[in-house]
Amino acid sequence: VSPESRRVRLDLAYDGTDFAGWQVQPGVRTVQGVVSRALERVQGSGAVVLRGAGRTDAGVHARRQVADAQVATRLDDAGLMRALEGLLPADVRPIELRTVDAKFHSRFDARSKTYVYRLDRSEHGDPFLARYALHHPFAIDAGAVCRALDRLRGRHDWSAFAGSACDVEDRVRTLEEASFEESAEGVGTFTFTADGFLNHMVRNLVGTLLDVARGATSPERVEEILASRDRRRAGATAPARGLCLARVRYDRLPDPGA
Amino acid sequence: VSPESRRVRLDLAYDGTDFAGWQVQPGVRTVQGVVSRALERVQGSGAVVLRGAGRTDAGVHARRQVADAQVATRLDDAGLMRALEGLLPADVRPIELRTVDAKFHSRFDARSKTYVYRLDRSEHGDPFLARYALHHPFAIDAGAVCRALDRLRGRHDWSAFAGSACDVEDRVRTLEEASFEESAEGVGTFTFTADGFLNHMVRNLVGTLLDVARGATSPERVEEILASRDRRRAGATAPARGLCLARVRYDRLPDPGA
Repeated sequence: VSPESRRVRLDLAYDGTDFAGWQVQPGVRTVQGVVSRALERVQGSGAVVLRGAGRTDAGVHARRQVADAQVATRLDDAGLMRALEGLLPADVRPIELRTVDAKFHSRFDARSKTYVYRLDRSEHGDPFLARYALHHPFAIDAGAVCRALDRLRGRHDWSAFAGSACDVEDRVRTLEEASFEESAEGVGTFTFTADGFLNHMVRNLVGTLLDVARGATSPERVEEILASRDRRRAGATAPARGLCLARVRYDRLPDPGA
Repeated sequence: VSPESRRVRLDLAYDGTDFAGWQVQPGVRTVQGVVSRALERVQGSGAVVLRGAGRTDAGVHARRQVADAQVATRLDDAGLMRALEGLLPADVRPIELRTVDAKFHSRFDARSKTYVYRLDRSEHGDPFLARYALHHPFAIDAGAVCRALDRLRGRHDWSAFAGSACDVEDRVRTLEEASFEESAEGVGTFTFTADGFLNHMVRNLVGTLLDVARGATSPERVEEILASRDRRRAGATAPARGLCLARVRYDRLPDPGA
């Protein structure tokens, strides 16, 4: 007899450098593909459908992605976690695993997500940040960047910052948090929290904000770009390597089995 | 007419993961090879012999390696630095370049070097540390490690901790600094400063200290191993990826041209 299946929530961290993004695609190494195959090996037979809260692009990292899957195994949560620790490679690691309500959906139930975008502010480029940050040694007008961020916070139609691959109809999202800070160690960090993000939205925002940082675009102009809903008016898409899905928040969920 | 040649000191940082070590070897990518070729491209013709203070092994990193070379170019130091910035890849970066006394030798003139060895203390392995630390989630008896470090500091014959490839006669070195600390972020760091290190010495010390950390070897036993000068009695060689050449110190050198 096959074991009863259950829904598990799996929190993951990954270095996205050597992945062609989250989503399974034929012939390439993806996070969803690698983790699904590990769960299928544990299950022994049959496919496992792994759903992720954020479908990160190629080269984008995650400090704490949240995924869920229906899995049939006699292993308890701790045993399944240990099996994944053994099966998953060094660049995608399980952080936490627990059985959840059968109706849990990591993407649809997510209340908000936080993305960070990192800049390596060192003069000559730090080789230990090369995979995780955009090298940006140029002067930054932090005051102008903050004024632009002030104008971005809130509920807006983000069409001007959506990638061309974005195929959703409703492009209204609420940007709850938008900040920039520079550490003493020479890392600049943009942080964005919203109830949802459009494809390429953070990278297009960062590209535009770097135009503000160097004085090529004014904070007022950013507000105009946003209002225009016209992608052609925003800045370039910042490279994937600086971007990291930091956190996904959920409302309190029903206890497993409750 | 060819430009006059001069000796330059070049400080470098590198992620050693994708290099087969410092030293040029046929058919593989080495730090010395990549940087020498960049200098040769700037020079236009003729070979450049780049000397490094520490001949780091495959997979070992450097936060600040010091190298020197005789280079014939019309570029001044700032121009040569900019050329190297453009020519060198993201995983080996120039930090500083300056013309030095013709007699400067980055290895022979070094007064001391500092190596650090990092442990990833997270439970499930941090993918962002996988290239730069040894995952070691096990309990560490920090008191025992500190007592073992106390017994290692000072002037000793380090034969017991020399790698089999070590071919030097005089194995007496002075270990000035030997410490271990754990950060709030879950990184354990061994720091070793000495007037010189034998091949594999730090990695063999760390392997032995991890035996002490788990109670398999006593601090007193470490002193006996050191006194025995017998490599077979020390612990395993810790993996290269945790090791990083942090700093090289020199006595005050004569000013260029002085």
